[in-house]
Amino acid sequence: MALAHTPPMGWNSWDCYGTTVTEAEVLANARFLAEHMAPHGWDTVVVDIDWSDPDARPHGYVEDAALVLDAHGYPQPAPGRFPSATDGRGFTALAAEVHALGLRFGVHVLRGVPRRAVAAALPVPGDEGWTTADVADPTSTCAWNGHMVGLDHTHPGAQAWLDGLVAQLASWGVDFVKVDDMLAPFHADAVAAWSTAIARSGRDMVLSLSPGTRLSTEHLPLLREHAQMWRVCDDLWDRWEDVHANFSRLARWAPHQRPGGWADADMLPLGRIGIRAERGEDRSSRLTLDEQRTLLTLWVMARSPLMMGGDLPTSDPATIALLTTPAVGHVLRTGVDGRELLREPVGDGSDAGELVVWAARAGDGTDGRYVAVFWTGDRPRTERLPLSSLLGDDDAARGPWSVRDLWAGDDLPAPAGTTAEPRGVLELEVPAHGVRWVELHRQD
Amino acid sequence: MALAHTPPMGWNSWDCYGTTVTEAEVLANARFLAEHMAPHGWDTVVVDIDWSDPDARPHGYVEDAALVLDAHGYPQPAPGRFPSATDGRGFTALAAEVHALGLRFGVHVLRGVPRRAVAAALPVPGDEGWTTADVADPTSTCAWNGHMVGLDHTHPGAQAWLDGLVAQLASWGVDFVKVDDMLAPFHADAVAAWSTAIARSGRDMVLSLSPGTRLSTEHLPLLREHAQMWRVCDDLWDRWEDVHANFSRLARWAPHQRPGGWADADMLPLGRIGIRAERGEDRSSRLTLDEQRTLLTLWVMARSPLMMGGDLPTSDPATIALLTTPAVGHVLRTGVDGRELLREPVGDGSDAGELVVWAARAGDGTDGRYVAVFWTGDRPRTERLPLSSLLGDDDAARGPWSVRDLWAGDDLPAPAGTTAEPRGVLELEVPAHGVRWVELHRQD
Amino acid sequence: MALAHTPPMGWNSWDCYGTTVTEAEVLANARFLAEHMAPHGWDTVVVDIDWSDPDARPHGYVEDAALVLDAHGYPQPAPGRFPSATDGRGFTALAAEVHALGLRFGVHVLRGVPRRAVAAALPVPGDEGWTTADVADPTSTCAWNGHMVGLDHTHPGAQAWLDGLVAQLASWGVDFVKVDDMLAPFHADAVAAWSTAIARSGRDMVLSLSPGTRLSTEHLPLLREHAQMWRVCDDLWDRWEDVHANFSRLARWAPHQRPGGWADADMLPLGRIGIRAERGEDRSSRLTLDEQRTLLTLWVMARSPLMMGGDLPTSDPATIALLTTPAVGHVLRTGVDGRELLREPVGDGSDAGELVVWAARAGDGTDGRYVAVFWTGDRPRTERLPLSSLLGDDDAARGPWSVRDLWAGDDLPAPAGTTAEPRGVLELEVPAHGVRWVELHRQD
Amino acid sequence: MALAHTPPMGWNSWDCYGTTVTEAEVLANARFLAEHMAPHGWDTVVVDIDWSDPDARPHGYVEDAALVLDAHGYPQPAPGRFPSATDGRGFTALAAEVHALGLRFGVHVLRGVPRRAVAAALPVPGDEGWTTADVADPTSTCAWNGHMVGLDHTHPGAQAWLDGLVAQLASWGVDFVKVDDMLAPFHADAVAAWSTAIARSGRDMVLSLSPGTRLSTEHLPLLREHAQMWRVCDDLWDRWEDVHANFSRLARWAPHQRPGGWADADMLPLGRIGIRAERGEDRSSRLTLDEQRTLLTLWVMARSPLMMGGDLPTSDPATIALLTTPAVGHVLRTGVDGRELLREPVGDGSDAGELVVWAARAGDGTDGRYVAVFWTGDRPRTERLPLSSLLGDDDAARGPWSVRDLWAGDDLPAPAGTTAEPRGVLELEVPAHGVRWVELHRQD
Repeated sequence: MALAHTPPMGWNSWDCYGTTVTEAEVLANARFLAEHMAPHGWDTVVVDIDWSDPDARPHGYVEDAALVLDAHGYPQPAPGRFPSATDGRGFTALAAEVHALGLRFGVHVLRGVPRRAVAAALPVPGDEGWTTADVADPTSTCAWNGHMVGLDHTHPGAQAWLDGLVAQLASWGVDFVKVDDMLAPFHADAVAAWSTAIARSGRDMVLSLSPGTRLSTEHLPLLREHAQMWRVCDDLWDRWEDVHANFSRLARWAPHQRPGGWADADMLPLGRIGIRAERGEDRSSRLTLDEQRTLLTLWVMARSPLMMGGDLPTSDPATIALLTTPAVGHVLRTGVDGRELLREPVGDGSDAGELVVWAARAGDGTDGRYVAVFWTGDRPRTERLPLSSLLGDDDAARGPWSVRDLWAGDDLPAPAGTTAEPRGVLELEVPAHGVRWVELHRQD
Repeated sequence: MALAHTPPMGWNSWDCYGTTVTEAEVLANARFLAEHMAPHGWDTVVVDIDWSDPDARPHGYVEDAALVLDAHGYPQPAPGRFPSATDGRGFTALAAEVHALGLRFGVHVLRGVPRRAVAAALPVPGDEGWTTADVADPTSTCAWNGHMVGLDHTHPGAQAWLDGLVAQLASWGVDFVKVDDMLAPFHADAVAAWSTAIARSGRDMVLSLSPGTRLSTEHLPLLREHAQMWRVCDDLWDRWEDVHANFSRLARWAPHQRPGGWADADMLPLGRIGIRAERGEDRSSRLTLDEQRTLLTLWVMARSPLMMGGDLPTSDPATIALLTTPAVGHVLRTGVDGRELLREPVGDGSDAGELVVWAARAGDGTDGRYVAVFWTGDRPRTERLPLSSLLGDDDAARGPWSVRDLWAGDDLPAPAGTTAEPRGVLELEVPAHGVRWVELHRQD
Repeated sequence: MALAHTPPMGWNSWDCYGTTVTEAEVLANARFLAEHMAPHGWDTVVVDIDWSDPDARPHGYVEDAALVLDAHGYPQPAPGRFPSATDGRGFTALAAEVHALGLRFGVHVLRGVPRRAVAAALPVPGDEGWTTADVADPTSTCAWNGHMVGLDHTHPGAQAWLDGLVAQLASWGVDFVKVDDMLAPFHADAVAAWSTAIARSGRDMVLSLSPGTRLSTEHLPLLREHAQMWRVCDDLWDRWEDVHANFSRLARWAPHQRPGGWADADMLPLGRIGIRAERGEDRSSRLTLDEQRTLLTLWVMARSPLMMGGDLPTSDPATIALLTTPAVGHVLRTGVDGRELLREPVGDGSDAGELVVWAARAGDGTDGRYVAVFWTGDRPRTERLPLSSLLGDDDAARGPWSVRDLWAGDDLPAPAGTTAEPRGVLELEVPAHGVRWVELHRQD
Repeated sequence: MALAHTPPMGWNSWDCYGTTVTEAEVLANARFLAEHMAPHGWDTVVVDIDWSDPDARPHGYVEDAALVLDAHGYPQPAPGRFPSATDGRGFTALAAEVHALGLRFGVHVLRGVPRRAVAAALPVPGDEGWTTADVADPTSTCAWNGHMVGLDHTHPGAQAWLDGLVAQLASWGVDFVKVDDMLAPFHADAVAAWSTAIARSGRDMVLSLSPGTRLSTEHLPLLREHAQMWRVCDDLWDRWEDVHANFSRLARWAPHQRPGGWADADMLPLGRIGIRAERGEDRSSRLTLDEQRTLLTLWVMARSPLMMGGDLPTSDPATIALLTTPAVGHVLRTGVDGRELLREPVGDGSDAGELVVWAARAGDGTDGRYVAVFWTGDRPRTERLPLSSLLGDDDAARGPWSVRDLWAGDDLPAPAGTTAEPRGVLELEVPAHGVRWVELHRQD
């Protein structure tokens, strides 16, 4: 089966710990994931940016950070934060512990080569005598982090140095690499070089590319060829407008989702976040419960990977309950053909908002259909939607259809036909900034 | 070649004359169209609603209007408004005059059978002895006009009565029928019945269905089977928010545009409108020039039919110049694969807006590419867009590409490659609520 | 003591019963008011528009209504709706019942003279032989109700006819007249004529003028001379934007509030409304509980009269509890110098909103101060406000001050001084669209 | 005549040069002011923050800046930027040059004592042996600039040190001091200490306090006692929402404007700004011409001081023409009783906006009245305003009134009376985000 045959699901340290996560915190989250969430498909644990910085702190990056590097300039886990990483063992022990829990282990890497390695002109693996100063492109910088400069992919030693980096990740047991600063601006050469290096490493590793500010669908052929996940937005935080802006993006990307290649709407800023993070203070997600359901439903219907950003052991049980609602993992993995059916402004004044309707089909051989009715207004709204608009004229006629509320987990009355709407009408009250998410099945 | 092989282009009386247009006004517009616009593809003239009402007036429908009907209850042009329609000749003479100008002739019809015909129990053509009272369904009403009730399509006489109506249209020489009150709510039975009646009439007539409030893409199979145009929104007027709401709708419908079946974003409320119309007073379109360019560019890139709503002979020359800009007709007829590439909120406060980028390809065998960069903010904004995001990585590499401004009709500097963006960057200043629309060609 | 020495408080039939209220419904509300609300200052019962229309119905005015008129064209209660009004007794019995409950009785009257009376040329009281046709000005119409035409105040008989109308109201025992169609546009002559007629009637009647769309403060001298209440806005319904728009208006009018003359922010669309009203269906007010507190607090701090619009016996107990919260009546009657202290946009995105702070002083000889902290954003917000900004530098220094929550009815911790803010800081979490309303007292 | 008998008018270096202005640039602006603008009342030149920083640069403050200080820790002009300031002469020569042009000279000072002076424990003038370390309060910091710490006003040496600072300013010939970091949070002790020091200096100096984020009107008594200008908002830049937010603030402060004490709506970000400033790049003001007229009209009607922020010699002539429009200086100095008459939401969708009307009276003994009709919508709008709403019922009746357009400088047709509006109606088309500003005079 292809790598990332279904959208990856897991936990990532960024939203709660920023650049500062420790081995103990990673393991605590891994254990929680294995115990409480793995049955629903959550199986990947990712250590995000700057794990080689011994002085990492909240609210930004350390300027000119004293990254721990080996003799080739490859980043090593800072031993003060990752005690098992001493003596050049890297993430070997941590990856093994994660694997022992039945999970996959992922790490973050920034595009390019460390500035400090360039300054030190460290040897590139191999006999050609190249150094990191030879293979770097000092004009290729990252707009938001100063630790690295780009590789000069026109120099043959650039690929050699990158091959060595990825080989080391493979030797540690890494299953998933989130490579950052790749898509905005779009670095086609770096994307291809990473794909090559992974292939040469001989280990299956999911290649996840970030961030995706203004990512155009025109890059799809190149992305499909080289990677398994590509972000389609900038960092997403616990703000309603961040969630809202993804309606348009996912409507555009959803028709292109395929096994082995997934548009990624970013991590889930849910539960307890901001403990020592880049943005904001220690808090519970500021999204309301209905906004959280909107986010999860939209991500699932569009088949975005789900990477939980909150600290699992200390998040409130209601958040864990949302994430382990059976429909979340089930529809993400088996739903197909997710797409926007309607997006309409309705109402005015304080009643104004947008009605957004998505549909998907069960890809598991049953006749199930999934429908999500979103409402962006500030007040609840009752909508009446004819089944023929949700299922198509032919399928609506093949009913009657029964309806199940996927968030509540219970059955709703079957929509009865009327003279005006012989196929029946689904009537739902949708909360403010909320969603009603249902599954329809043909009655026997 | 299929009926409506390319999206229809023409003039419609609704936005300027509402229910009240006269024969002289139709002919004046037809002559202007033939003389000034036909070379650019504008070739259809449509008489909108209530041409059988002798007492029609601006700002709404006459209650219990005394529609002119024949012995079967089929509407006839009111002779006071259409002098050539006396003696049961209907639109025969007017259609002939329009045909003589090299144009096609269209009329509006409301779903169902006139209430007055039902009350009079007029004979349905044929020998079965059915009357209009037998074939009507008085419970099937229209929410915004009281002249008609629906047909009862379970009664065999309903199709017979409709066949007679369409046969009469065919006998007059009608080429295009806009049937109203069909899609919101969705009347699948009426759509099929109209398609059948047109086929039985033996005359090619474009079937255009309206209005499209909340039309779901799930109806596409049925629509493609029976019609050539389907509205995808409610009535559009000269308000920016009406234009703006069509960005989402057209992004959803554009991938489904095919020869012979077109999603229709409604008529163009440009030039002089409201002379005796439903909405507003006699005026020039309240859309700014930039908003008008936005509207036209969006419609063309999405391949919506273009039906000009303003009175042509008395519209300002700037409006006529917009409509006859060569790219409008050319791209509408030959552009393919129109789609949204990006839709992103950018800026904040008074600089806030959405960047929306569309692309299409020349379908005429050349390597031309069309790109439209829209900006919904209230202030102008300069955008820099890498060619690789607009053309894809492979095609961008096949450059260099030259750039032509489609609205201004002149060439722009070719985007030069830089180290960071080797394929070049297109830099454009986009006006408030405006668009920059360019064509790219590979240089030899 | 002056008429309307403090802002009137009572019940009005418009928001729940529109034009259709009956005697039984008026009495049911009066009894509820007397039993449950009178101890808090609520003492007036007003029958709103069209009590003389026997065919009144919800959702608008009856065209060419067959108003019950006497021989001079003076409106009489429709006996089918007001059984006690037979035999020319008018509202005599109903007023007496209301008086017996310890309450005041008010009625609505439209500016001008009934069209039907004009058509019938009925005699004006007196010996001059004038008729209603002589004293009417048919060019002076009301934009939203066609029952009346204006009086021609240059004709001496106009005042005579109006004197007779008001004398009849006085004879019935009316204590309060809401005269409509007076201020928008502003009818200076009619305002003066009503004031004269009331003076001549010999009975104290509060003169309340409506509606107040775009009322300018420049009319204050004339308003103070003639009336006791003047609306400063158009009709207000249970929509947040209607409430919100009154912040600016009341900030402008509050400094001009004086005993005997009150700017009126319109009735309170709270509790059960729309039973048979002009706007909307039978419902509980669509304002959230926090929005209702905002409305009441703003009205009270600005000293607008309070006229409850919901049906009292069938409103939910929570609404009645709000209206009878002791601070509502107490601060309305005894607070002075209410004014806006601050209005500031804060936050951005989904955290954006306005902070609005009002203050008032106890006018009862104590040192009490009232402070209302409003927040218009969609999410709760915690604000820290220095006491010196709320009380002034001198008064803040005369502390320490204790704080009481006026809606909750309990004490809050006293703001402690710090080095940076030696007078202390009031920290409050304010709900979305909500208010925190406190009283401050100097501790002994 | 009182200091600041009318609102000060002048030029300030902040919006164009930030912390970096040089002597030559100050003089170039002074000369332009004297030559082109002084006849209209513009007479003050102010050097804004950090004139003692030799390393000042755009876009922020230099951390731990090496301020030029004398032996007591008093800031001295950096000689590299102010060549005439060598040998301890301070601003003596520059002030003299400005005085020779007939203008007044102002400087900016930050609250407190330089951190570097505190660290060096420099002697406080006098015999007590106190040092700057004794009189400083290191806990009292500024939120946005780290150069200073507060004075400990409970220590007697604090006033002594401040007296010495102000005596030096007086000795240089300073006429105007803008003291920063005073009001947000509100430092009542520092305000009083500055007022005392100025009085002791024996020189008339206008005391201008900044910034005014969330300044409450409750501080008015203390402000009036000690200062002549107080900011009522945070820094204002060339953004429409910054201008818009001042409508509410100025409506609240305008009734409190008095000779000798003026609420200050901040500098005018017009003409060429951002040359080397804190915010943004070198640019012409991003406010449209209509927004600039709105800003100036609102400031003038509310009588805010006018301090031009753009570089005068290189600003476009249209901006200079605005500033020297005769009504600007004339109404600012002689208009009285400026106040908001109306603020009303009108329209909806793309036609929505607020109508805001202000009025003022001529304070020069004539019967002139000033009216400003603002419109915040995005499209032009025609308004009809009865004279009685603009002038009051009595004054409107004393007409007829003639009307002069103050921005265009020409006469408009006199409003004619009609039956419905006997006093006449002023009909004006107001541009988007714009204003129409008129003077009314009784015709003889």
